[in-house]
Amino acid sequence: MATQPRPTVTRRAIITLTTDFGTADPYVGAVKGVILNVNPDAVIHDISHDVTPFDILDGAFTISQAYRYYPPRTIHLVVVDPGVGTARRPILAIGEQHYFIAPDNGVLSLVFEQQERLSVRQIEAEHYFLSPVSNTFHARDIFAPVAGWFSKAQEPQNFGPEITDFVRLAPPKPKVLNEKLIKGIVLKVDTFGNIITNLTPKDVPQLFADPPQTFKIVVGKQEVTKISQTYTEGGANEVFGILGSTGFLELATSRGFAARLLGVQRGAEIGVMLG
Amino acid sequence: MATQPRPTVTRRAIITLTTDFGTADPYVGAVKGVILNVNPDAVIHDISHDVTPFDILDGAFTISQAYRYYPPRTIHLVVVDPGVGTARRPILAIGEQHYFIAPDNGVLSLVFEQQERLSVRQIEAEHYFLSPVSNTFHARDIFAPVAGWFSKAQEPQNFGPEITDFVRLAPPKPKVLNEKLIKGIVLKVDTFGNIITNLTPKDVPQLFADPPQTFKIVVGKQEVTKISQTYTEGGANEVFGILGSTGFLELATSRGFAARLLGVQRGAEIGVMLG
Amino acid sequence: MATQPRPTVTRRAIITLTTDFGTADPYVGAVKGVILNVNPDAVIHDISHDVTPFDILDGAFTISQAYRYYPPRTIHLVVVDPGVGTARRPILAIGEQHYFIAPDNGVLSLVFEQQERLSVRQIEAEHYFLSPVSNTFHARDIFAPVAGWFSKAQEPQNFGPEITDFVRLAPPKPKVLNEKLIKGIVLKVDTFGNIITNLTPKDVPQLFADPPQTFKIVVGKQEVTKISQTYTEGGANEVFGILGSTGFLELATSRGFAARLLGVQRGAEIGVMLG
Repeated sequence: MATQPRPTVTRRAIITLTTDFGTADPYVGAVKGVILNVNPDAVIHDISHDVTPFDILDGAFTISQAYRYYPPRTIHLVVVDPGVGTARRPILAIGEQHYFIAPDNGVLSLVFEQQERLSVRQIEAEHYFLSPVSNTFHARDIFAPVAGWFSKAQEPQNFGPEITDFVRLAPPKPKVLNEKLIKGIVLKVDTFGNIITNLTPKDVPQLFADPPQTFKIVVGKQEVTKISQTYTEGGANEVFGILGSTGFLELATSRGFAARLLGVQRGAEIGVMLG
Repeated sequence: MATQPRPTVTRRAIITLTTDFGTADPYVGAVKGVILNVNPDAVIHDISHDVTPFDILDGAFTISQAYRYYPPRTIHLVVVDPGVGTARRPILAIGEQHYFIAPDNGVLSLVFEQQERLSVRQIEAEHYFLSPVSNTFHARDIFAPVAGWFSKAQEPQNFGPEITDFVRLAPPKPKVLNEKLIKGIVLKVDTFGNIITNLTPKDVPQLFADPPQTFKIVVGKQEVTKISQTYTEGGANEVFGILGSTGFLELATSRGFAARLLGVQRGAEIGVMLG
Repeated sequence: MATQPRPTVTRRAIITLTTDFGTADPYVGAVKGVILNVNPDAVIHDISHDVTPFDILDGAFTISQAYRYYPPRTIHLVVVDPGVGTARRPILAIGEQHYFIAPDNGVLSLVFEQQERLSVRQIEAEHYFLSPVSNTFHARDIFAPVAGWFSKAQEPQNFGPEITDFVRLAPPKPKVLNEKLIKGIVLKVDTFGNIITNLTPKDVPQLFADPPQTFKIVVGKQEVTKISQTYTEGGANEVFGILGSTGFLELATSRGFAARLLGVQRGAEIGVMLG
């Protein structure tokens, strides 16, 4: 096989999609078509279409964990939009390195927390929209064509005025009840049954201290007393804590589904007892 | 961030995929590989691989709702093909603005209804096929290589002779039983639990009249008596009618799954009683 | 519609993804982002993200059935990696026509069986990795950036030394118990409920002989005595054998789910009794 370097080709605009549309309906296909009809050279990548339906915080979590790995100037379309057709505004957010197009319902809240510089515009430039605009599918009629047009020139000022009163939802934060008790919740159960909590090493440094300190993680009626470095430690059906790739404490088990073992779902309470 | 316009790049051929193959098997990956092996510059986009298995009308609905948003000259590969390996023919359809490659089993019926100009060719040019051709996977062995080769030059006459006896399935149409009663069916339940019927505003203009008229939509033992403009109107668990993004009447509920509330599945009967 | 040939465009690197990550988490999106951040011109195609979680042989089956259809020099990223963070090595395999990047846990075993020439390198070039490297997500931190950098120049020697002691798992092979009895197992049940066995026509030529010979295929308490040429033969709920597109004997039923009819799952035993 030849091993010469490939010639460089001009960079095309990258647009990612994060939605709760599922993949069994024509909705995702329509959105991609609208983008390509405006900018046939756009490169579209699915981040996920399996955000929990109607669940704005799950969408916020998903995009906040993926966007930063993309090249600068990537355009992220994020549509979890139970309020479609109501007064909630469409927005274009210009972060430090990335662009975001979404409904103004808080789905970008976790992304906003991670930006040192941020400018948000209300999308008002109706000449970019499909016509007529439905009350039921703004991803197709507003967000997709705006993404397509924006990807051609990336001139935010053409899309609407800057606003400062955009929606920021407060994600669920850990609560320090006293020196020995911190409470958190389950943010998500992933495909592998790993229980992703909202606790970071900053919240519970004792769990990751060297030498390790005594602690109990309480979930329902179960107690977890071990932190592992990898997913394969421990015996069958033994649940341990681990620092997950998302930056949060996870509860996991070797080659199994910890959430099934513990009977835990999204939103469940987690208690960390120290000493 | 820089905001200069990007330089224009030569347009590549766009090929979409609509199948009932699911995403857990190697089938979709093989189809994409065959296309790219013929035309490495083709841009492939998934519309859906989660059409209900064997369900030709569900495939017909999916492609009919998505194709028109793509740029002119997009090539749509549509494979819901329970009769693979039998005498049913492979066809290439040239519509007003788009191309379609599919088995001749009616999966393009709804697309055909929407074309003012249409020419259909039976694909006979076996030199484009993989060799040998299996009896079990024509998407890989026939449809994908034909899509690849067709995307390079778009010369329909090279692929086979025009035919006029291609299959057109009659999609289920609403029945006007009398002045006060119209019957329809459920075409599909979508990811959000919205119940998509086969009734359009043309079939039941009274539902969308201003001022609104009196009506009852009867599904099973339930009655729906309200039309909403957006998905968020009404109380929890209240089901309403709404004009959906597909152009059909839907039954929906705010941030919930109407199909679960009503216990309704695809194919169920809908009655609209006026006055 | 115009029918002129399209101008040729310089070939971009193609990278495929085969994982057990599912599509509901941010993991796939992060992997794509990392690749594109290194090589924004890479073209990424999903083969499957729905490999059975933790199931190395299912991943091996999936990639072995799809890779060969892609153009020469395609780079296949294959990550089913329950041992992430442990001592198992990351490898780069250079086959006859394709490249593979994967954990050294046997997930490429079936691909290796199909190569006449094969060179495998242990990936040691840490300057290509994300920093820091987590213990929980090497697809993002090691495999994706390596795929991105490798796609730019395809110089295997830059990534680490050749090794010969890479892992080869023995896939389950049919057993010839005597002249009249061959035993196999179910490799996979596909989206259509087809039961894919590990028996090929070489293992049981008698099933595909012309004229056909007498045989019984025994699964659980059921017997199958017919071989069909296409998926549509036979009555409703009649199960038959058929040579599947993967090259293996399948058990199937016309427009139905044979695995449901027979109550059969992956790993079940199959007996073929001849004469």
